[in-house]
Amino acid sequence: MSDSFNNSPIGVFDSGVGGLTVAREILRQYSNESIVYFGDTARVPYGSKSKDIIIRYSKQIINFLKTKDVKAIVVACNTASAYALDEVERELDIPIIGVVKPGAKVAARTTKNRRVGIIGTEGTINSGLYTKIIQGIDKDITVYGKACPLFAPLVEEGMLHDSITDEVAARYLEELKKEDVDSLILGCTHYPLLRDTIGEIMGESVNLVNPAYETAVGLGSLMDELGIQASSDHEAIYEFYVSDAAEKFKRFANSILPLDIEKIQQIDIEEYSTSL
Amino acid sequence: MSDSFNNSPIGVFDSGVGGLTVAREILRQYSNESIVYFGDTARVPYGSKSKDIIIRYSKQIINFLKTKDVKAIVVACNTASAYALDEVERELDIPIIGVVKPGAKVAARTTKNRRVGIIGTEGTINSGLYTKIIQGIDKDITVYGKACPLFAPLVEEGMLHDSITDEVAARYLEELKKEDVDSLILGCTHYPLLRDTIGEIMGESVNLVNPAYETAVGLGSLMDELGIQASSDHEAIYEFYVSDAAEKFKRFANSILPLDIEKIQQIDIEEYSTSL
Repeated sequence: MSDSFNNSPIGVFDSGVGGLTVAREILRQYSNESIVYFGDTARVPYGSKSKDIIIRYSKQIINFLKTKDVKAIVVACNTASAYALDEVERELDIPIIGVVKPGAKVAARTTKNRRVGIIGTEGTINSGLYTKIIQGIDKDITVYGKACPLFAPLVEEGMLHDSITDEVAARYLEELKKEDVDSLILGCTHYPLLRDTIGEIMGESVNLVNPAYETAVGLGSLMDELGIQASSDHEAIYEFYVSDAAEKFKRFANSILPLDIEKIQQIDIEEYSTSL
Repeated sequence: MSDSFNNSPIGVFDSGVGGLTVAREILRQYSNESIVYFGDTARVPYGSKSKDIIIRYSKQIINFLKTKDVKAIVVACNTASAYALDEVERELDIPIIGVVKPGAKVAARTTKNRRVGIIGTEGTINSGLYTKIIQGIDKDITVYGKACPLFAPLVEEGMLHDSITDEVAARYLEELKKEDVDSLILGCTHYPLLRDTIGEIMGESVNLVNPAYETAVGLGSLMDELGIQASSDHEAIYEFYVSDAAEKFKRFANSILPLDIEKIQQIDIEEYSTSL
């Protein structure tokens, strides 16, 4: 453990509001860390878009976050983590972590029957990254992926407890139930908000893995290793930026976070360079 | 009727694939007219985004279409028509029409009991533009608007005939049925693809208005008036451009259009100016 410290903020980004579940875990676990959050509400969702465009958008956002002098970046979006993290990591001079690796690691560690399910957007599932990381840890684990493209729109409609959501979830999860997985990764930052519905369908014997929690833990280890934690008496500041519709974002954010956001600023993300 | 002609293409744009239902009507009604279509697949959907951002995106697309030397522009997206048409019309030197006015006019003309329903995205409904135009024609018509944010994702999932879609539709349309509307405007270009489901719920006595058809008729009158129709022996050329995922767009387009698209080009829409 290093005894140096760094009170610069942590940059956190997502395609929209989903990444707030990750920001929530970070501020729960490290109350002295400042956060600059960016939600790309002008171009949301990322889940059905191509790898090239997600890399491009991620680079623009990273360039914006760097103007805020962030000491580390958390890609709080599974699709962007799956498609863009490797590419941007190579070119970046500050540490960056995504949500895929921490989630994959804990699933590989906790499965007993070596059958793991992963639900996410089309992009996250098609990337195959969760499978690659899990089988890199233990090649005998079988991974079953299932894209659930209607889950995010249902969450954004606030239909968290609704018969329509129940029916959609039953349909999506049928296959994974049949495959007898004992761990299911909630591979999209919106999905922890559907935890009750998903848990009820999968049954008590299935462990639901929330990468948000694991990512915050991983971020802590990384900051510790690099000696870039904030000092223990540091008073955290939270800043929120979006590319569109700040008021709408604020309502959603205030329903998720354990604090009231007062100010959200809208910026023009297209102005930022697409190269790092 | 003018006897001059103009063989330049008609520019048609939408947030993604939905506007292809409008392009389909144009090429059905005017087989000699060339079309340049642009689908903003990198920033889709528009329906939940703000007026400012939709105006901005529309201006970038119009600047792109102008590089293709289009003689007129069709805004084949209800949200962009509702939010951006007035603003861009003032600044543009070529004729432009949207889908809202033609749809509103036919609903005002066909309702018997002066009770009209309109379904669309959050943006289209919140704009209040359909109501304004209909009541401008006949102030005694009562207009009932209902945002149906899950319809577009369901269509994009290909769930056109599905028990989940039936349940979602029943929920959304319940209120409009109670209000005893006799005309219902399908105020989003995706919705004509749900015509069967919507028609079954609303019943035979309710007239479903598809603005795509009316927009193509309106475009014909406009070209006629300005003397800019293509010559009758002109061989139409169809060009398709998208801002992301050309292959995915192609599959969808080929399932909707009465022709096989061979080539779709991807362009960087963010490069175009946000002022006209």
